[in-house]
Amino acid sequence: DASLKVFSLNSNRKLAEDIATHIGTKLGKCTVSRFSDGEVQINIEESVRGSDVYVVQSTCAPVNQHLMELLIMIDALKRASAKSINIVMPYYGYARQDRKARSREPIAAKLVADLIETAGANRVITLDLHAPQIQGFFNIPIDHLQGVPILSDHFERKNLEDIIVVSPDHGGVVRARRMADRLKAPIGIIDKRRPRPNVAEVMNIIGNVEGKTAILIDDIIDTAGTITLAANALIESGAKEVYACCTHPVLSGPAIERLKNSNIKELVVTDSIPLPEEKHNDKTTVLSVAPLIGEAIVRVHELQSVSVLFD
Amino acid sequence: DASLKVFSLNSNRKLAEDIATHIGTKLGKCTVSRFSDGEVQINIEESVRGSDVYVVQSTCAPVNQHLMELLIMIDALKRASAKSINIVMPYYGYARQDRKARSREPIAAKLVADLIETAGANRVITLDLHAPQIQGFFNIPIDHLQGVPILSDHFERKNLEDIIVVSPDHGGVVRARRMADRLKAPIGIIDKRRPRPNVAEVMNIIGNVEGKTAILIDDIIDTAGTITLAANALIESGAKEVYACCTHPVLSGPAIERLKNSNIKELVVTDSIPLPEEKHNDKTTVLSVAPLIGEAIVRVHELQSVSVLFD
Ligand SMILES: Nc1ncnc2c1ncn2[C@@H]1O[C@H](COP(=O)(O)O)[C@@H](O)[C@H]1O
Ligand SMILES: Nc1ncnc2c1ncn2[C@@H]1O[C@H](COP(=O)(O)O)[C@@H](O)[C@H]1O
Repeated sequence: DASLKVFSLNSNRKLAEDIATHIGTKLGKCTVSRFSDGEVQINIEESVRGSDVYVVQSTCAPVNQHLMELLIMIDALKRASAKSINIVMPYYGYARQDRKARSREPIAAKLVADLIETAGANRVITLDLHAPQIQGFFNIPIDHLQGVPILSDHFERKNLEDIIVVSPDHGGVVRARRMADRLKAPIGIIDKRRPRPNVAEVMNIIGNVEGKTAILIDDIIDTAGTITLAANALIESGAKEVYACCTHPVLSGPAIERLKNSNIKELVVTDSIPLPEEKHNDKTTVLSVAPLIGEAIVRVHELQSVSVLFD
Repeated sequence: DASLKVFSLNSNRKLAEDIATHIGTKLGKCTVSRFSDGEVQINIEESVRGSDVYVVQSTCAPVNQHLMELLIMIDALKRASAKSINIVMPYYGYARQDRKARSREPIAAKLVADLIETAGANRVITLDLHAPQIQGFFNIPIDHLQGVPILSDHFERKNLEDIIVVSPDHGGVVRARRMADRLKAPIGIIDKRRPRPNVAEVMNIIGNVEGKTAILIDDIIDTAGTITLAANALIESGAKEVYACCTHPVLSGPAIERLKNSNIKELVVTDSIPLPEEKHNDKTTVLSVAPLIGEAIVRVHELQSVSVLFD
């Protein structure tokens, strides 16, 4: 049975430790630092020869730094004769550049997939991709985990009454439907429209939210513009209170300020992206995806081992 | 005849403009910025369909940022049906990670070559690679230009007498020899040795420098430790004065302070990496590689066009 080793790079060390603990192992020894000129320097300090290696790294900000750490780590593991190199990437950076919306646009999400494969990865484990189609950007196996059960369980424990699960845009309806099924609640949709060019957007709400407890769900909350405007629209339409949740708290630029000043009562996120101290406040609840990812690693590793048994 | 277009990314816009001017063209329209969360955003604002495109980008600090700009630009050009995508990379970042010196080290210089090819580049034009072997990391044509003539010409114009060209280590002897040939001067070598482990290095000088004007030459000056210690050793051994030159002024960390306080009379570098204002001082001379690179682009483009004629 090939040994299982978990390594952490710099994006999300706490999550990596929690995953290792969940599996019942310790993180592999490895120093990830920078040379004086800023180039990434990686020293793997224990043998990985013949091991099934799991590398935990979210490509959150600084995204280019974290991506290069990942690619260089894969290169080092490959040259050190790891048996398999499995990338655990809870947050997939550049996922929103997943299609040509205009002429001459790049498709950076596909580029990132190609870079990871070229470096030498054998498998990717990821969580709530911005678009499930990104799975098809890879020619290696990809395990696509879902954050909805973790977020739903949190709201179930709160015993809220008369819930409506609301998608802040049309792109997120499938996700909202999935949460609503678990909470046995109806769904609503924020229907943004620009009546004419250069005229302010109108926020129309599909579904009756009057007197209800609304739960907004999205995959990513970045600058928090969409979600806080959606919360306003819900309150204006008579919602009793508004909760918001997402898997990936990118929270860049004005996000924290906007959320603080918003109608949102609680913001529920996961640790797919670590929240630095200054981004925490009493409105924020962080749920861990470590057990989910730990389970996935154990399952993947068992299958890999089984296949070895039948080699 | 396919049209030639030159685009600049963010590392070295001044050099890109000078190259375009040398060729007798203007830079292509393209905005390279960042989204709120730090992801690279590229908008190519003119058609590149059927064009031979040259993208000027040194992967100097912030290296990961500049590398991702380059890879995403290549992806965008490829999807926009450029006829050929030619990378002009005067400084090649990660070039010093070009071999496994210890167990489990990555070979980031090879990884970078693979990433550039995977993104879709057709050709690379570069300057004074840290090791010429890096040419072999590519499976696409690579034009490897030399900075020695530009640096030598500068010293020739100064009409210095009784010159010795000195390599600061054994790895740079070929380069020193090349400059010495042009200046019709002898060469010296700084021969660093550690007599026993945990004992300070001894700087021995091979060659007689007494009363001579020494010119130290290297490919990269990074923290300037090697070069300033070499200058000290030369003065201690009786050199009359010491000049230093390199192609790539990385100049990170303590470099500027060390150079200011050193025995070096003049530091001559090229614009392969731009020197920000705060890194300039009266000791520094910057020579442009724009004419050299402009010539190379014209030559490469003529050949590409000729091949089209015979298609
Ligand atoms: N990092 C980013 N931050 C903000 N917007 C982005 C980012 N990456 C891509 N986009 C844009 O977001 C849109 C995709 O979002 P969506 O419609 O939700 O899939 C595209 O129009 C992209 O240009
Ligand atoms: N960005 C960097 N800054 C400083 N040292 C580096 C860097 N990249 C690689 N190295 C180290 O420099 C050595 C290669 O330099 P050289 O012997 O001159 O080819 C290797 O031992 C590398 O570990």
